[in-house]
Amino acid sequence: MNRTVGIVLFNDAEELDWAGPWEVLTAAAKDGDKVITVAETLEPIRCAKGLRVLPDQTFDDAPDLDVILVPGGIGTRVEMANVVLTDYVADQAARAEWTTSVCTGSFILWAAGLLDGKRATTHWAAIDEFLGIAPDLDLDREARWVVDGDVVSAAGVSAGIDMALWLVGQLYDVQHARDTQRYIQYDPAPPYGVEQSPSAP
Amino acid sequence: MNRTVGIVLFNDAEELDWAGPWEVLTAAAKDGDKVITVAETLEPIRCAKGLRVLPDQTFDDAPDLDVILVPGGIGTRVEMANVVLTDYVADQAARAEWTTSVCTGSFILWAAGLLDGKRATTHWAAIDEFLGIAPDLDLDREARWVVDGDVVSAAGVSAGIDMALWLVGQLYDVQHARDTQRYIQYDPAPPYGVEQSPSAP
Repeated sequence: MNRTVGIVLFNDAEELDWAGPWEVLTAAAKDGDKVITVAETLEPIRCAKGLRVLPDQTFDDAPDLDVILVPGGIGTRVEMANVVLTDYVADQAARAEWTTSVCTGSFILWAAGLLDGKRATTHWAAIDEFLGIAPDLDLDREARWVVDGDVVSAAGVSAGIDMALWLVGQLYDVQHARDTQRYIQYDPAPPYGVEQSPSAP
Repeated sequence: MNRTVGIVLFNDAEELDWAGPWEVLTAAAKDGDKVITVAETLEPIRCAKGLRVLPDQTFDDAPDLDVILVPGGIGTRVEMANVVLTDYVADQAARAEWTTSVCTGSFILWAAGLLDGKRATTHWAAIDEFLGIAPDLDLDREARWVVDGDVVSAAGVSAGIDMALWLVGQLYDVQHARDTQRYIQYDPAPPYGVEQSPSAP
C-alpha cells in the first residue's frame, strides 16, 4: 500500500494515547508502509507522565502523510495555540486519506480547523471543557470513536487502540484487523480486570 | 506509599508491552511513588517496532525497586542470555514486593531463575517456544495473567494493561484501580471493534 502513517508528538502528549495506536499500526503495517513519529524538532519529547521519546522526523523533513494521528494529553492545551503544529496538521490533513485523534487530540484537530461542521469526541472528562472552547461542536459523549468523513476522533487514552484497529480494517481489510487484534492479544474482558485474574488463586 | 516501580527496557522490547503498564502505573501513582524506566545504559532504546525511548536510569544507579515489570518482544531471546540484565532482575526480584512480566518478558523471568516451580504465562504464540526452552514449566494457555506468589506474568502485549490494573488493586485498593481504569477509559468492547464504531455511520 506504501502508506506513511505519522504520529504527531509534542511535550506532554499522553503516552498510551499514541503508544496504543503505534503498536496497532506498526503491527499491521505491510511491506512498503511506514509508521513514523513526527514533531516540531528532533529534541526528545517529554510526555505527560514523564516518558522521553525521540521523534523520527520533523514537520519540515517528514514525507507527506497518508494517515495522521494526533494524541491527547495535557499538552494539547498549549499546542492548540502552536500555529506551527496546527498549520502542519491542517496542511497534512488536506491531502491525507485519514486524519485521526485520540483523547484531547481532537482539541488540536479543532484548532486546525478540521472539525467545522463535523461530529467528534474526546476524553469523557474533557467533553465539557471542549464545549466551553467550542460551543457549537457536535460532540458524542458515548462513542469509543467517531467517524465523520475522513476525520476520526477517539475517546480517552485506551480508546485509541480500538480506533486504530478499526482503521486497520479500513486501510487493509477486516480480516487483517482481526489478525492484528489477535497479535496484540486484545481481548480484554473488564470488569473482571481489577479484582481477579481468571486464573488467580 | 513511596514505592518505586521500574520498567526494564532493552532493545527490541515490544512497545505496548511496557507502554500500557507505564500508563496505568503512572496514572495510578500517588505522591511519593515513582515509576521509572531502567536499562543497562542510558543510550536510546530501539524498541521492536522502531520507537526510540530514553531510559531514566541504569541498572547501576536506579534505586531498589518495589515493583519490577519486564516487557516482552523479540529482544527477549537475546536478553535471556544477557547476564547483566538477568542478574539485575533476579537481584531486584529478591527484595521486591512484586515481580511482573508481559508477553515474552516471562522468558527473562525464567532465565533469571524466578519461575522455578511457578505457574506462568506468555504470548499465545510463544507458549510452545517457551515449553521448548523450559519443558517443565507450568504454563497457562488461557489466562490473561497469572499470579503465583509475588510473581505475576501477563499474556501478550495488551494483556499487560489488564495485569497492571489488577496490580493497582493490590498496591492501593480496588476502587483506585477502577478509578484508573476509568481515567484511561479502558472499557473496550471487542469484537465490535474492527468492523464498526458504535457511532460510525
